[in-house]
Amino acid sequence: MGDMFAVVQSLEERQARTAIIVGAGYIGLEMAEALTTRGLAVTLLEQLDQVMPTIDADLAAPLADHLREHDVNVQHGTKVRAITANGGALTVDTDRGNHHGDIVLIVTGVRPDTELAATAGAELGLRAAIAVDRHMRTNLPDVYAAGDCVHTYHRLLDRHVYLPLGSTAHKQGRVAGVNALGGNATFAGSLGTQAVKVFDLVTAGTGLRDHAARDAGYDPVTVATTDDHKAYYPGATPIRIRVTADRSTGRLLGAQMLGSRGAEVAKRIDTFATAISYGATVADIADLDLSYTPPLGSPWDAVQIATDTWRRTVGASA
Amino acid sequence: MGDMFAVVQSLEERQARTAIIVGAGYIGLEMAEALTTRGLAVTLLEQLDQVMPTIDADLAAPLADHLREHDVNVQHGTKVRAITANGGALTVDTDRGNHHGDIVLIVTGVRPDTELAATAGAELGLRAAIAVDRHMRTNLPDVYAAGDCVHTYHRLLDRHVYLPLGSTAHKQGRVAGVNALGGNATFAGSLGTQAVKVFDLVTAGTGLRDHAARDAGYDPVTVATTDDHKAYYPGATPIRIRVTADRSTGRLLGAQMLGSRGAEVAKRIDTFATAISYGATVADIADLDLSYTPPLGSPWDAVQIATDTWRRTVGASA
Repeated sequence: MGDMFAVVQSLEERQARTAIIVGAGYIGLEMAEALTTRGLAVTLLEQLDQVMPTIDADLAAPLADHLREHDVNVQHGTKVRAITANGGALTVDTDRGNHHGDIVLIVTGVRPDTELAATAGAELGLRAAIAVDRHMRTNLPDVYAAGDCVHTYHRLLDRHVYLPLGSTAHKQGRVAGVNALGGNATFAGSLGTQAVKVFDLVTAGTGLRDHAARDAGYDPVTVATTDDHKAYYPGATPIRIRVTADRSTGRLLGAQMLGSRGAEVAKRIDTFATAISYGATVADIADLDLSYTPPLGSPWDAVQIATDTWRRTVGASA
Repeated sequence: MGDMFAVVQSLEERQARTAIIVGAGYIGLEMAEALTTRGLAVTLLEQLDQVMPTIDADLAAPLADHLREHDVNVQHGTKVRAITANGGALTVDTDRGNHHGDIVLIVTGVRPDTELAATAGAELGLRAAIAVDRHMRTNLPDVYAAGDCVHTYHRLLDRHVYLPLGSTAHKQGRVAGVNALGGNATFAGSLGTQAVKVFDLVTAGTGLRDHAARDAGYDPVTVATTDDHKAYYPGATPIRIRVTADRSTGRLLGAQMLGSRGAEVAKRIDTFATAISYGATVADIADLDLSYTPPLGSPWDAVQIATDTWRRTVGASA
């Protein structure tokens, strides 16, 4: 919150008309939308080859196109080398030329703020986050920790990762609170479920993408579908879906979606997240009694069309 | 489809300006919206004390208000006694006065069309629908049946009911097709999941409502929540939620929602439908890693806020 108030104050004091955002993760995308809406000309720089590196490139490409349609100057595959001030303006020097802006935002990731805990003797783990068990206990007696400062148990990987998300922080905080008061709660774990709205599109994902599933010892196959919904219905828009599941068992490992804001993409990802929590296979998804009404979906929901496409693609073995 | 083309033809030939709809189930509500959008003055008559009798009265009341805001003359608790033609106009005589219209639609339910099957010797069951097993087999050798003409296995009730829905028909049709070709598929069952859009609102539900759960031998408690989402976010709208679960076990039995079209109500019901399929308790819902982004929800999703409210209301025993 403090950072955001400082940004707003700076925008007003400098009467900023141009902004450069370094980092095209979800914060970078949200800031690109917010500053564009405020009337600034925005350049978005990302060192990787796509925006939103937490989703597959096939979904990131139309998302980048959408940003460009809203006049955001998207430059991925671009490494920042230096930022210099010359009078009021700032210059961002990259390996692919210079960019000038009235304000520069660096949004390249989250670092756990653990100085207080470390000074008190708390053990740090992955990415220097506070090491906690699934009861959110630190190594210090009677000291619990939760949120962006701790590592997070991942339900599918069965190990801790660094995955700072607001929804996770709330769940961990409740577990820490219950246990601090003498209760016995266990953090069930994260699936890394995320969603972000960028102008008129929403992208969301849950579980493991192909490479992460492979690293974890699965034999993943990822299959893409575009569901055109009820194409005859006025206002229907396509949803792009990518389903990742284990080749031999058909166990559902992850899903990603991209669709328009009204297409209920984020909450369709929750159907996948819920099913994954229960160890569902792609075949199990076809049996779910999901809601249907022509303005909002089809008799086989987009979620089911995607898992059925996976089954047809991978073959009867799953 | 044929009925709908006939309605459109009749509207055009008669240059209809007023319509009376008898029956305020989902077809009646959809027709009220469609005819209003077409410019007709619509009166909606329902003999029961609420519109949309498949949802609880607490959700039906704001839905009726919404119809009235869109100039639909909603009259529930009104029994139709006769319909008479006098020249071009039609008069609907009810126990609470007469209504005049250029066209009258009767949308008071679905009757299975089973004459062909019955003549061939197919056994009929509940509501004179074709009796089938969970393989969609009739009593006739090599004859399978699926869709609105058959009774439907209900997953929570563990018995057949008459519940004709498009999503169910598709699933049953696939099972019948697989088995007719020599495969071995079983219909997993319906939860009665439904959704309907009415102007700018969507209502959706899944599973058992209080009275149905009680009839089935559960000890249900239904708790209402209104989730105000991120009230600070522009365009956020409240979602009304009713959760039904078993008092002693906390087993989730059903859920109903009402919210604006953009509030992803239908696909939030799918989270409940998926969880119910796996036998989830209300406590289990808090552990789900559901998607969060401020434009679309809160760190504890509306689904979780509703189940947590149920737990706080019913007490620690669940």
